[in-house]
Amino acid sequence: DFHHPHQLLDGIEGFSLEITGEAESLEQILVDCRDTLKYGVKTGHPRFFNQLSSGLDIISLAADWLTSTANTNMFTYEIAPVFTLMEDVVIRRMCSIIGWEDGEGIFSPGGSINNLYAVIMARHYVMPEVKYDGMRGFPELVMFQSKHILQSKLAGKVPFYVTATAGTTVIGAFDKIPEISGICKKYGVWLHVDAAWGGAVMMSQKHRHLVTGIELADSVTWNPHKMMGVVLQCSALLTRHKVLVTAVMYDVINLLPIVMSCLVLSRHSDVRNTSQGILESCNEMNADYLFQQDKHYDVTYDTGDKTIQCGRHVDVFKLWLAWRAKGDAGFEKHVDRCIELSRYLVRKIRKTRGFELVNPEPEYANVCFWYFPPCIRNLSDETIKHEKLNKVAPLIKSRMMENGTIMIGYQPLGSKVNFFRNIVSNPAVDYDDIDFIITEIERLGRDI
Amino acid sequence: DFHHPHQLLDGIEGFSLEITGEAESLEQILVDCRDTLKYGVKTGHPRFFNQLSSGLDIISLAADWLTSTANTNMFTYEIAPVFTLMEDVVIRRMCSIIGWEDGEGIFSPGGSINNLYAVIMARHYVMPEVKYDGMRGFPELVMFQSKHILQSKLAGKVPFYVTATAGTTVIGAFDKIPEISGICKKYGVWLHVDAAWGGAVMMSQKHRHLVTGIELADSVTWNPHKMMGVVLQCSALLTRHKVLVTAVMYDVINLLPIVMSCLVLSRHSDVRNTSQGILESCNEMNADYLFQQDKHYDVTYDTGDKTIQCGRHVDVFKLWLAWRAKGDAGFEKHVDRCIELSRYLVRKIRKTRGFELVNPEPEYANVCFWYFPPCIRNLSDETIKHEKLNKVAPLIKSRMMENGTIMIGYQPLGSKVNFFRNIVSNPAVDYDDIDFIITEIERLGRDI
Repeated sequence: DFHHPHQLLDGIEGFSLEITGEAESLEQILVDCRDTLKYGVKTGHPRFFNQLSSGLDIISLAADWLTSTANTNMFTYEIAPVFTLMEDVVIRRMCSIIGWEDGEGIFSPGGSINNLYAVIMARHYVMPEVKYDGMRGFPELVMFQSKHILQSKLAGKVPFYVTATAGTTVIGAFDKIPEISGICKKYGVWLHVDAAWGGAVMMSQKHRHLVTGIELADSVTWNPHKMMGVVLQCSALLTRHKVLVTAVMYDVINLLPIVMSCLVLSRHSDVRNTSQGILESCNEMNADYLFQQDKHYDVTYDTGDKTIQCGRHVDVFKLWLAWRAKGDAGFEKHVDRCIELSRYLVRKIRKTRGFELVNPEPEYANVCFWYFPPCIRNLSDETIKHEKLNKVAPLIKSRMMENGTIMIGYQPLGSKVNFFRNIVSNPAVDYDDIDFIITEIERLGRDI
Repeated sequence: DFHHPHQLLDGIEGFSLEITGEAESLEQILVDCRDTLKYGVKTGHPRFFNQLSSGLDIISLAADWLTSTANTNMFTYEIAPVFTLMEDVVIRRMCSIIGWEDGEGIFSPGGSINNLYAVIMARHYVMPEVKYDGMRGFPELVMFQSKHILQSKLAGKVPFYVTATAGTTVIGAFDKIPEISGICKKYGVWLHVDAAWGGAVMMSQKHRHLVTGIELADSVTWNPHKMMGVVLQCSALLTRHKVLVTAVMYDVINLLPIVMSCLVLSRHSDVRNTSQGILESCNEMNADYLFQQDKHYDVTYDTGDKTIQCGRHVDVFKLWLAWRAKGDAGFEKHVDRCIELSRYLVRKIRKTRGFELVNPEPEYANVCFWYFPPCIRNLSDETIKHEKLNKVAPLIKSRMMENGTIMIGYQPLGSKVNFFRNIVSNPAVDYDDIDFIITEIERLGRDI
């Protein structure tokens, strides 16, 4: 039941978004709640294939309700004793699944913030003085993404950070981690793996090979709110550098970092406090008006000084409870099934006229494809054909939304014109929902 | 019912935090839920005076439950039509309460992240090229906090950002905004007001004078999850620069920014796109694989390009529904009552032997005080007396937690040794709870 912004803003069937400043009756508040759900988008519907996060897991939903009811904050053990310990337990488990003997981490508000944390840690690892002195006195730092690892000269710049992706947003592609790690190790560069979307394959014996070598990473972003079905938001940052014992100094002659087994000499005594984890070492502000050290309990479980936030929402309980309820096997079954359903879609596309895969052999739960309506199938001019093809996905998508029968995302990528990207991450999806993708796109698009 | 971390980790009365990897029964999951609440801290209890956020507002709790159920994400209108429009409506209302005719903003995960947004905006305002070229080619930027506004020479540095605080965390003090604004205007510096805690006084006719001049700010952080009682998390960043028409250039001779009514000449065509708001101008990445522009609806309500996050939790509905239910008057009554209860505590402290106020005339809902147990009251050596006094609050706090009768925070501040900071922000607090503060501290502390 699609409405344009101006329609919803004008008010439909008595549903008004306005805040007049007057108190409404309890009856009206209940109507507001009903209408808010009614005019929203059903992201839990098995034919909502639009986003990496979909479905509605009942256990993690219940946990999120309980989290709201507890209404507390992650910064100290004092006010969140159970949740801070749970976070520690879950982080340890995730580190162990990655393949690290030890490690630390936190849950933060999403993959982008977690990737930011990783960049800050990597900078702190190579140049801890930056925290106090700023970056002006130091050589320029450079970071690299995925396969764009520069082999050529860096003209006086220091490479400090490489991010590999495990499950790209559009294609669902996985970088070869061992290869990238080899280059990182050679130059003493921090390797971060953004496994926000793809990290879930670590739960599957069948598909874990996609992230072979992930244990070589210095840090990993992993979002259980994506493929693992935990309700939004639940995103973890993990690092194997629980205690910072190996320091890195950059060699000012060659401008490359050198891994050293000694500590950087620093005039800031706490820059290299080896009893601290790296998260705390780089993010603490020593704000004793917030995080007192003279408490009567063991304050090592207080997390406030590990983060760039002050208050932090409780995101761990949803995952903890879902994990207790499903077990490792429950997550494995879910990941395997979503990938199997995606492979089924791949097979359907291969044998259906008018459909074409963007990447012939998808590895994960992303299936990217074009639909060529009959009118453009036989065009001989490739330029015109692609110009027309570029408008097909947006038009069909608008018809999907107006019909309210299905939702699939689209986007262009590099030189490739707009194509559909279908995601299966919802446990409610079944084979007939996949069949429906093909028949509904044909129904909505054949007259174009 | 206090337990030390090792006790909870070892398992108490069958409550185990462990994730074994095996699936537990539904009965066990229900027991887990019960125990998680049981061993947590009751932040909604009327004698929990420990944090700026307390209480448990039933309307916003219901809204948070519904938010979890909707399980969607703020980045596009497409998947969150109602919530993106609601955010727009609420942001406009908040801007109007500040006193701005127009403005924009977003809800982000807490005050610290919002203050980070403000710094990024301010830098973009004065040096938009930084987004593309980095900071190396530009003069060093300096920011100032509260009253520490430098009048002396800046030695080649460019002041670009001043933050004033409306309601400090410990004392609850309010900076004089008009005075600070005058200096900012003179030097063309961005003024941010951190009203995370104090912003709620804008809802009160009686106490609004505390933030006189807030409309002079360029941006404001305001957390409804603090004094306005909305469940965690709900924090807004607001700016009056909805559309960036006035550009600022820094004068390389005097190294001071000059406000100019023309656009900065830039080789980056979108640095000064005047049809964009400043949030989008400084944070957009033009990632067309995420935020397509060729959609069939008006994409101005898509918020993804305004933020440094990608996914963003729905935090607005809690506030929207609470506002509809209480009206302006409901918030006003709440703020007035919390301050009145705090004034009542001030009066009690003044007339109770052994208690002493840290700030003689508290302005807001923070009441900071020392308790002198009988054994130290008559000590003549001030050094010894203060050494002993420094240990009193931590000791009484540990007894509070072990007894489970009350929770009040403490901290040192500058040269002042540890003192209690009592916060009233919970609508469930009554006069007898305030009386209890005095009697319970006396009971727990008199034998020290």
